[in-house]
Amino acid sequence: MRRLLEPALRDAVASLHPWGGDMAAFSLGWTEADGTPAGERGGKALRPALAVLCAEAVGGAPEQAVPGALAVELVHAFSLVHDDIIDHDEQRRHRDSVWKAFGVGPAVLTGDALLALAISRLAETGNGPAMARLSAALVELVNGQTEDMAFEDRPWTGRAAVTLDEYCAMAARKTGALLGCAAAVGVTLGGGTAAQADQVYQVGLDLGVAFQIADDLLGIWGDPNVTGKPVHSDLRRGKKTLPVLAALAAGGPAAGDLTDLLVSGATGSTDDEPARRAARLVEQAGGRAFAVELADRRVATAMAALDACLPSATTLRALCLTLVNRTR
Amino acid sequence: MRRLLEPALRDAVASLHPWGGDMAAFSLGWTEADGTPAGERGGKALRPALAVLCAEAVGGAPEQAVPGALAVELVHAFSLVHDDIIDHDEQRRHRDSVWKAFGVGPAVLTGDALLALAISRLAETGNGPAMARLSAALVELVNGQTEDMAFEDRPWTGRAAVTLDEYCAMAARKTGALLGCAAAVGVTLGGGTAAQADQVYQVGLDLGVAFQIADDLLGIWGDPNVTGKPVHSDLRRGKKTLPVLAALAAGGPAAGDLTDLLVSGATGSTDDEPARRAARLVEQAGGRAFAVELADRRVATAMAALDACLPSATTLRALCLTLVNRTR
Repeated sequence: MRRLLEPALRDAVASLHPWGGDMAAFSLGWTEADGTPAGERGGKALRPALAVLCAEAVGGAPEQAVPGALAVELVHAFSLVHDDIIDHDEQRRHRDSVWKAFGVGPAVLTGDALLALAISRLAETGNGPAMARLSAALVELVNGQTEDMAFEDRPWTGRAAVTLDEYCAMAARKTGALLGCAAAVGVTLGGGTAAQADQVYQVGLDLGVAFQIADDLLGIWGDPNVTGKPVHSDLRRGKKTLPVLAALAAGGPAAGDLTDLLVSGATGSTDDEPARRAARLVEQAGGRAFAVELADRRVATAMAALDACLPSATTLRALCLTLVNRTR
Repeated sequence: MRRLLEPALRDAVASLHPWGGDMAAFSLGWTEADGTPAGERGGKALRPALAVLCAEAVGGAPEQAVPGALAVELVHAFSLVHDDIIDHDEQRRHRDSVWKAFGVGPAVLTGDALLALAISRLAETGNGPAMARLSAALVELVNGQTEDMAFEDRPWTGRAAVTLDEYCAMAARKTGALLGCAAAVGVTLGGGTAAQADQVYQVGLDLGVAFQIADDLLGIWGDPNVTGKPVHSDLRRGKKTLPVLAALAAGGPAAGDLTDLLVSGATGSTDDEPARRAARLVEQAGGRAFAVELADRRVATAMAALDACLPSATTLRALCLTLVNRTR
């Protein structure tokens, strides 16, 4: 994957203004903030792998999918840089986030530059259907991020509380659209039909919901040494994650105690004890088990759909399972 | 222009998340921050007009240019929303900027949403060459903004000072690329040739440099009641604008005094007197006259090129002249 993708990625970043290129290189994990080469080599390139495997699954050569693989990786990088600004996240992959290292203004521009590169490199192929897939996914992604931000102002309980269906719709947009796009663009560039592209897009949407739930589980019970995020960070900032929403929806004494704790705002204190107690209550109320089960169900749906449309794509199938099995 | 563009613009904004749509409507000048309809009706739509007139100039119908007109207007709106974050500008068109009204995170997302809409609406036409023009201009625009930001860390004098050629190259990217793109996309959607599109793109680049210089002149000597920006704001924040760079490059006693004043940082104080003195010194050193002359020369080049490639496009010619004559 790296052998295919990295030359294209380096060539794209080299077309930026040198300073913008330096910030982009940092955001991709290639360098430290001072410009020295980084020890590890960036993200897991799951989305590009999805694009390439989908191209192969419809009989295309891996090389055909590269502009799409490049574009989805750059869109993913763009979304992380801007997300960290929006969420005030100071850490990403055990390092300073881009805004923390370079300032908010430069980070806004870095995200814009990554997005501009994504679009221009795919546009250069002249493949209209692939471009339409990418741009539609981009609108979905931004709408999903907006919905996620809007959730923050919603109450924990009552008629205006965020429902589990609303959560899943948000996650499908915010996380699923780009996974679906990676798959659909791979199919398109690999010479597959529009119907096949639609089918794998739907697979990506379901995987995205499962992926987002897995992320939520990691945000509460994940090892900070592995996740690279502070422990209980989602609980401490009062994010409306699925395990919490499911726990509150379950009712019962633990859900009642959890509501009181969340409404009190104590989980937002510098002391970790209230957040730790909230995590225990989410588990007691059944929120953790429900989240795992919901994610499993989405994966099963996705896998059944994948088996139906691309039955012999065993590597692709394995990748999809890896995607969402980060919590087990 | 409004009759053509506004339905498409409203339809695009309506496809956003409701909250994102509210912020986009504010950024386009349609509403106040509380959602009530605004008195005036948004920007001047110069870039869409350029696209439509270029389509007509090559024999196309105005309607053919609408997706391009829409896209360049949305890219322009995106760039203003993010620019105001980057430059810490609290005011835009006599109102709060988007980040001032809604916060930095929501403003980052609003810009992203406007850009996503621009791309998706043009991508839906399936016109590959138009899409390639837009995305290439986007890379240029972001690189130009990055260069402009990088200028801030450069010294006022000496070997590392910003040269006038560097300034013009930055302005061609930051301001010219989108004007050129508007014209080239108009030609492309109107059925013109790739050679014609290249020619009007170059016209846009030259106009962009003149436009940016006119903006710089307004930033120093413009009436705040007209510009909607605080008086002397560019001088007070130490921006490397063309009149200042030209004054410093001219040498002589006024340039020497100006250098001392700028290096002292006194123009950044809350007192307006140092900035007022700097404006006088820029004029005495010949920076204002040089800037006007340079802008005029770029306009003459642009108009000669336009007359050569589209000799009968009189309305287009008049629009181009209006674009850059805001200071006279």
